[in-house]
This record gives sequence, C-alpha cells and structure tokens, in this order.
Amino acid sequence: MISVFGHLNPDSDSICSTIVVTDWLNFLNKNAVAYRLGEINPETQFLLTEANQQPPALLTHSIEGQDVWLVDFSELEQGPAGLDKSNVIGLIDHHRLGSLVTAEPLDAWIRKVGCCGTLVFDILSKQSGYTLSSSHAILLLGAILSDTVGFQSPTTTEQDRLAAEALTTISGVNLADFTLKLLNAKTDISGLTIERLLQKDEKNYTIGSNKVILAQIEVSNFAAVEDKITQLKAEMEKRVITDALDFYVLMVTSLSTSQSQIYFSDHNPVSKVTLTMDNMISRKKQLLPWLTQALGQ
Amino acid sequence: MISVFGHLNPDSDSICSTIVVTDWLNFLNKNAVAYRLGEINPETQFLLTEANQQPPALLTHSIEGQDVWLVDFSELEQGPAGLDKSNVIGLIDHHRLGSLVTAEPLDAWIRKVGCCGTLVFDILSKQSGYTLSSSHAILLLGAILSDTVGFQSPTTTEQDRLAAEALTTISGVNLADFTLKLLNAKTDISGLTIERLLQKDEKNYTIGSNKVILAQIEVSNFAAVEDKITQLKAEMEKRVITDALDFYVLMVTSLSTSQSQIYFSDHNPVSKVTLTMDNMISRKKQLLPWLTQALGQ
Repeated sequence: MISVFGHLNPDSDSICSTIVVTDWLNFLNKNAVAYRLGEINPETQFLLTEANQQPPALLTHSIEGQDVWLVDFSELEQGPAGLDKSNVIGLIDHHRLGSLVTAEPLDAWIRKVGCCGTLVFDILSKQSGYTLSSSHAILLLGAILSDTVGFQSPTTTEQDRLAAEALTTISGVNLADFTLKLLNAKTDISGLTIERLLQKDEKNYTIGSNKVILAQIEVSNFAAVEDKITQLKAEMEKRVITDALDFYVLMVTSLSTSQSQIYFSDHNPVSKVTLTMDNMISRKKQLLPWLTQALGQ
Repeated sequence: MISVFGHLNPDSDSICSTIVVTDWLNFLNKNAVAYRLGEINPETQFLLTEANQQPPALLTHSIEGQDVWLVDFSELEQGPAGLDKSNVIGLIDHHRLGSLVTAEPLDAWIRKVGCCGTLVFDILSKQSGYTLSSSHAILLLGAILSDTVGFQSPTTTEQDRLAAEALTTISGVNLADFTLKLLNAKTDISGLTIERLLQKDEKNYTIGSNKVILAQIEVSNFAAVEDKITQLKAEMEKRVITDALDFYVLMVTSLSTSQSQIYFSDHNPVSKVTLTMDNMISRKKQLLPWLTQALGQ
C-alpha cells in the first residue's frame, strides 16, 4: 500500500492534489491511500464541500519502511516523523528542491508553476483512458485559485491559467463566483486561536544552517489582524523555544494591496524591525529567495 | 546563458544526454551550452565518433550565481565547485533524490528508468515541432545500452527497451553489432593508469554522515583486473586520505557472469573482507541501497 500525502499544516493544494493523485495511482492499480498531515482549513473545507468529497484520513501510522508519495513538498522538515526512513517512490511538487534524500530512484515531477494542481492536471491530460470527474476538477481548480490567489501571485504561469480554464469547463462552476467564495474562505480567520492562526500555514525550512519557520497569514487587509500582532509575536517567541528554532518569520499578506508585512522573532540575523514589502505575496517565490540571500546562502 | 552538464567522471549517459538536452533547450530558445566535468571515456568516445559529434567543452568557468541544468545527477558531491551557489533551474535524472537543495522552484524530471536517455527521448517525443536527428538518436541509444549494459542490468525497464527500439530505427544502426562494439569499448581498460582506472567511474556520496566514494569498474571477466587489485586497493587508501573520506568502495563487475566483487578500504564500518555478489551489476539500484541499509540509514 502506498500512502500519499501533502505537507504538514496542509493548504488546499496539498489536500486537493493529494486526493486526485491518489485516484490516478489507483487507476494505475497502485493501491494508494490519501492522507493529510493536519487540520483542514476553512478554504479547503469549502472546496471539499463544493466537490462533495470527504477529507483524507489523518496520517497516524508509522511510515518507516513504507512506500510513500509526496505531494507539494520535498522538505523533510515539512513531512511526518519517519519520512527519512520511508521509501519515497513518487513526488509531485512545484517548490524548490528540498532537503529530502531518497535511498533509491523515484518518479518525480517538479515544475515551476503556481500550483501542483496544474501539474497534476497536465499529467492526467496525458494519461490515456483516465477521465477527470467534475468533482476532481473542482478540487484542482480550487487548488490553483488558492495557490495563485486568484492569479494575483507572481508564481502564476500561463500554464496555470490554461489549466484553470480547462478545469472551469470540466467542473461547470462559475469562475468569478467560485473565486470570490474561495478567497473569502481563505482570509476567514474568525474563531481561530492565536496558536492555530499561526500554525495554519506554517512551513519549516532549513536555510544553510538555520532552522526556521516561515508562516503566512493571508488577509483581505492588514486591519484584519492588527489587534492580534502583539499576541502573535509572543507566540512566535514561544515557538522558537519549543521547536528549537534559530528564528521565526511571519509574513502577513494583504490580498487587497498585494503587500506583505514581515515580522521576525527576536535575536534573528536578518532584521531588527518589521518590514513592509510592496508587491510581495509569495512565500516560496519571493520571501524564501530573499531570506536565503539575506542569510548569505 | 544556461550551462548544461552531467556529473563528474562522466559516463556516456551524462555526456550524450547532455548534448541532446542542450539541443532541445536551444530549440526552446533558452540559449544553452553543453559542458562536461571530466575526461571522455573510451566508450563515450566510440559513441561520439559514431554520431559524428564533438565532445562538449570542459567546464572551467565559475557557475556561482549562474543558471544551470543538471543531467544524470542530483548529488552536490557529484557536481562542480560552486554548484550550491548556482541557480539550478532544470534537472533530468534517474537516480535517487540526492543532496542538492535549490533556492527556487525548478523544472525537474526524475524517473525510475535505466537511463536518462530514455527519459530525454520521452520528453522529446512529446515536444511538438522537434525532430530528433539520427546523430542524436545514436547518442541516446548508446547511453541506454551503456547504462543498462545491453539490457542486462536490473535497472532496465520496459520503457528503456521501447525507447531503444525506436532509437534504433531513427539512428539506422545494426543493434547487435552496435551493442557489441559499445560493450567492448566499455570494458576496454588498456592503457589506463591505476589512478585513472579508479577515477573513470567514481561517484561521491554522503550516506547518513558517511562521506564515501563508490567506484565501479566494468570488465568482461574478473581476470581482466586481477593483477591490478593490490595497486587499486593501495590507491583507494590514498584517496581516503586525500579526499577526507570515511571509506572507499570499489565494485568490480564482470559482465560475462553478472557478478560483482566489492572491495572496501581499511577501517570501514561495513566489511572486513572482499565480498562477491551474484547477480549484482548496478551500483545505483543494488550496491547503494545495500550499503545504505548496511550503514543503518
């Protein structure tokens, strides 16, 4: 049996693309089961409801020595315990090549596109005999709109737009209406505790010798979180200690202005002050390369 | 400009596939130049002559901050100095996912097939408007026959066979005759110094915390090297010191019997004696996983 899963603190891409990839592997008689590595966020729940799909089960079994497929990440730090002792036989991703090292050759698709969903759609389009259901088209379309923030992100490629166009037709949704609902769900932070708000979209990285977390909170405008910043910063300091980090970075992104405010934990080697960056909404394509360079890596 | 290259101590796959990938990138208007990271071995020279191609130039410029494409490896240890500071924007490979970590997303194709040439042929077959020349077909066919040792290696897949069949047609060669000449060139160790014989197909790996070299010498039968073993072992000990290795492993493979003799440098944590392994001819698929397990990784 192959366990298929996306990263910790799953976003819509790592849940939705995982469900579709698992279906494809089963079409190929691979006996695959989809899992998730954390709570479903409100945006993903909106997509699952629209697609009439159940969320994958939470991964609770040990994967040591087991066959696994990874979706949307190749950083050991973003996977479950035991990932370094598992057999990674497949990988579909659109991030940097991360810290994962495998013992044996694998099948890997990595493309510089805005979303794994785009790559999954490309793979399935070339798979003879496979028909993408409208439910799965909703999942992939939702993943693309989520990752590209409705095509606003600089990570968006022509291939993402073309895939979204084809998926809109297959799924039969009204794109403008669907996008609006999705972005509302994405920026819905009501009812979340400070801990959960921070964890919701955290990613662990090792940059050079620095063990860091880069968290992102996407909001419609900065006012939505300004009364929570003091508490968020205190929580970041706690996490530096509990997670034995070198430092913690929080990127609060305003989707209405395409700006990000970058908050750092104390004793970081990058900045003593909060930075406001214009035209920055992508952690992967903008924040991570900027930080890598700032650290002299 | 994109520099395209295969691994250090280049084998036929890492030269031949690099030449064809570079041609494809230029077809896509990417301004790519092929390079090699070491001497051309007799087998590769045979293929270049058959294909009427010049070898790529030796890489001598710094690649720090430059765009690069890697062919046939993703281990930092198998690349040139400065690889960790270059922008790896493309990767085509058929090995384990190695120690390379990139700063930004890239385009990567990795498949569990016997040869990069097979994967390159698959990519080109789907590239609209691109025509593979008979000369490039000879290079890819030669790479496949080399890596799969004329389809004898357990790494050989159905996809390798199908690609080779199509490439035989395009190249117009007589497959049996071409294979025989290629394997003769592969096992030709005449005129090589002990140092060069060992270096000819060395690969550096980090396995867990162990820095090792796994070298392979393919011969028609063990008798071809038995008078050189004492000198080879002495050279291995020297290399442990000069290269600051934890240990050195030499795999001598007899193509006529599909056996390998595994020689270890002194003070290694794996074996005090030389091992003879039946049905073992692949470093990647057999030796490396065996060694990884033996080291408890």
